[in-house]
Amino acid sequence: MRGGVDLGGTKIEVLLVEDERTIVGRARNATPTEGGAKAVVDAIAQTVEDAAASVGVETASLTGVGVGSPGAVDEERGTVGFNSNLAGGWRDPYPFAAELGDRLGTTLRVANDVEVAATAERDLGSGRGLHSWVAIWWGTGLGGAVILNGERWLGNGSAGEIGHMVVKLNGRVCPCGRRGCAEAYAGRAAMEDRARRLYARGQKTKLFELMEKANRDRLSSSIWEKALAADDPLARELFDDAYDAIGAVAGSIANLLDVDGFVLGGGLGTRFGVTAAEAIHGKMRPHVFNPARDPVVVPAALGDDGGAIGAALLVR
Amino acid sequence: MRGGVDLGGTKIEVLLVEDERTIVGRARNATPTEGGAKAVVDAIAQTVEDAAASVGVETASLTGVGVGSPGAVDEERGTVGFNSNLAGGWRDPYPFAAELGDRLGTTLRVANDVEVAATAERDLGSGRGLHSWVAIWWGTGLGGAVILNGERWLGNGSAGEIGHMVVKLNGRVCPCGRRGCAEAYAGRAAMEDRARRLYARGQKTKLFELMEKANRDRLSSSIWEKALAADDPLARELFDDAYDAIGAVAGSIANLLDVDGFVLGGGLGTRFGVTAAEAIHGKMRPHVFNPARDPVVVPAALGDDGGAIGAALLVR
Repeated sequence: MRGGVDLGGTKIEVLLVEDERTIVGRARNATPTEGGAKAVVDAIAQTVEDAAASVGVETASLTGVGVGSPGAVDEERGTVGFNSNLAGGWRDPYPFAAELGDRLGTTLRVANDVEVAATAERDLGSGRGLHSWVAIWWGTGLGGAVILNGERWLGNGSAGEIGHMVVKLNGRVCPCGRRGCAEAYAGRAAMEDRARRLYARGQKTKLFELMEKANRDRLSSSIWEKALAADDPLARELFDDAYDAIGAVAGSIANLLDVDGFVLGGGLGTRFGVTAAEAIHGKMRPHVFNPARDPVVVPAALGDDGGAIGAALLVR
Repeated sequence: MRGGVDLGGTKIEVLLVEDERTIVGRARNATPTEGGAKAVVDAIAQTVEDAAASVGVETASLTGVGVGSPGAVDEERGTVGFNSNLAGGWRDPYPFAAELGDRLGTTLRVANDVEVAATAERDLGSGRGLHSWVAIWWGTGLGGAVILNGERWLGNGSAGEIGHMVVKLNGRVCPCGRRGCAEAYAGRAAMEDRARRLYARGQKTKLFELMEKANRDRLSSSIWEKALAADDPLARELFDDAYDAIGAVAGSIANLLDVDGFVLGGGLGTRFGVTAAEAIHGKMRPHVFNPARDPVVVPAALGDDGGAIGAALLVR
């Protein structure tokens, strides 16, 4: 039995997995909102312990635990640095693998969250039929992973930052501070920020009414879904912008690398699934230079569990 | 002795090469402006014969002849199709290798022009110090080639179309008909087209006066160079736009693939060399997401001869 941890911006999801993807236990806790790396490590340990307790085993009896984490992950050293969102944020590399391994008494590996989810899709999901493809992880930000001839392409270690490919020179300011990045149009955080500013300026929208009704303080995927279902014009406009940006990124990648296609995951990608994949495909097509090419855009097959299943693959 | 043919929009350049890059003979003729593929093949054959005659050998005594061609090149079949610019243009694959091989009595190979120039830079030029890099071929259009771990990455056969990566959603119309492609801002043809339209609308520029003085009918690289030297504001503005676009493409590629750098060639890239490489590097930097990365931008080392030297490598 192996553990897989999906460390997200709002929740820590732990799965206990047997064979390749048989889920035998799970637990979930909120991601700490303060306390930095130490608080995050504590919360991960607690969630793994909860999952183990739910099936009556000790964490030390696990073959190992894999963690998929945002931020600057160094797989060799087992550290995570440069995390501006989680638990108030931290900068310097923090020894996730060493501390968690000690506390849980088992082998610990940590890797980039999008990379582990993409690996899961490659080995068990929508990537199985594709030779060369790019993962589009659409959620709070816009992340990616590059798979060429079935292997992850890392470049010098940080390839796959598709959210910061430029789609509009002198365009909107991105949460990263740069201008015209795809994430400035497609990241959930950037979309929410823009919605708030347009709403404050008097633009009509049901988004914030729906948010309050749901007793939330942010525009989660489900709020967007409700607004789109009600044909809210601002939600529709911001989604169109997001699809334009992701479509342009996919077209640019198709022209640069001539890959077979794209797998769409992440919080928004999973929620909007086929609808989003079709919209992105439609927005990509006009940018593809070679008329003989039509790369596919397919939703991730493993859904919300893909991150934790992929993390568990780190210790297979 | 091997022959290398650089088939360009205005001229056919043939080099006779010994060892890797010792040039022992050369000839040049204008590219036909009509007559389609057949006329181009005739003109290539004539130019190879001229080069051979200049050093007193028969073409049949050459080890072989390689051709670097624009358009849709099928290396296996030795055909070239989809050429909208040369000799009035043609669409269907034309048997370049078979016809030229028969006429010249030697082994004939044909490949994409940017690919052969990039291979020459990889093996003999500025690519030697780089492991993974992208060739930026800046001339009439904006072409490219991708080299990963020292090998050309072709994808399904047509990778490297960096000129049609999107840099501005809903931006300028590209000569390819799409919107917002980098080539719409950076290709010499697109830049000339825009200069003509702005001039017709009354914008002041020395570009066309310089063109007439030089007895030319188009804005060649040397005309642009003279206008920039005279600090012509329109030339300056259009070059800034071009550098913005190429810098955005380089930044996007750095974020996607985390490569070591870029080699800048092509007609404009070769003429503006270090100046252009530095300008593009400066425009790329603000887009690079990982603060620890600073990919190099270096001019192609083989200059104008790189295309023909690379073509000769096809038959080494």
